[in-house]
This record gives sequence, structure tokens and C-alpha cells, in this order.
Amino acid sequence: MKDDNTVFIGGKPVMNYVLAVVTQLNSGTSSEVVIKARGRAISRAVDVAEIVRRKFMPGLKVASIVTSTEEVARDDGTKSAVSAMEITLKQ
Amino acid sequence: MKDDNTVFIGGKPVMNYVLAVVTQLNSGTSSEVVIKARGRAISRAVDVAEIVRRKFMPGLKVASIVTSTEEVARDDGTKSAVSAMEITLKQ
Repeated sequence: MKDDNTVFIGGKPVMNYVLAVVTQLNSGTSSEVVIKARGRAISRAVDVAEIVRRKFMPGLKVASIVTSTEEVARDDGTKSAVSAMEITLKQ
Repeated sequence: MKDDNTVFIGGKPVMNYVLAVVTQLNSGTSSEVVIKARGRAISRAVDVAEIVRRKFMPGLKVASIVTSTEEVARDDGTKSAVSAMEITLKQ
């Protein structure tokens, strides 16, 4: 699983990421795409996966959903834990 | 899977839900608990699952994570789609 199959979800509108996922899957380089998000972007990641599956590629399957905790360094040097999620969609 | 094994995530502080999940699992009525959330509460649901697993019950396993889309009626009668997620934790 290489990073170029990965779409990182940030603060942009949901449709930007939906387009990125659909483009990735239609490019033919891979039959699967990994949607990654941390913190509050996790709910947006679920929105992206659901919209792609319902509106654009109905045959797409959720291969796996994995949650984890990552340590993020703050500007002042302290660390805080943030939840992360990876959704793998497969054709 | 009955509803009394279910913890619905809303807008309260994360630790309220962590306590609810731990209490549910320690009550002995079921070896698993289902964490449900919709929309923006989805990221909080992942936080709850991660904190319970990391800080309170390290042996706990994620039995499944399922996403879906639900239709919600607005006050004016129109409907909108909202993402939903269920995380099942198992002892």
C-alpha cells in the first residue's frame, strides 16, 4: 500500500476529497484507495467514503476501517494524543 | 445485539462517554458494547473508543467498525443525509 493511493482529509470542502478519491480510483494505478484523517477531520472522512460509495461508485466496498491514536507535538514542545482513522475502499 | 449495550455519542465531554462504555462492559451483562454516532460526533466516537482501549481496558478488541448514511428530517420537512458510524468493542 503506497502513499500515492492515499487521500488525506483536511479542512477543505468534502467534495474536493470526493473528487480526489474518484480520480484516484479511475486512474487505473490501483484498485483501492486509502482515506486518512485525524481528529475532527474523521467525520469528514466518513462523509467522503459514504458519498463516493453512494453517489459515484456503488460497487465500491469498504475493505477495512482502522482507528488508532497518534502523538502530535504542539508548538511549545509538549505532546498530545489525537485519534486517527484509515478507511480503505476497494473496487 | 440489544440497544442496552449501545452508547450513543452526542455533544457531551468525551470522558462522560468513556465512563459509560467502561461501566457497560464492567456490568457483566454483555461482553461487547456498541458505540454509535452521527455527523460531527463521529470523531468523538473514535476518541471514546481509543481512550477506552488505551487507558482503561487494554485487552479490548475492535470487533467491527461500520459506516452508513442515514436520512434525517429537518424541521421544515426536507430530508438530509448524514453519515453514521458504529464501533463494536469486544472483551
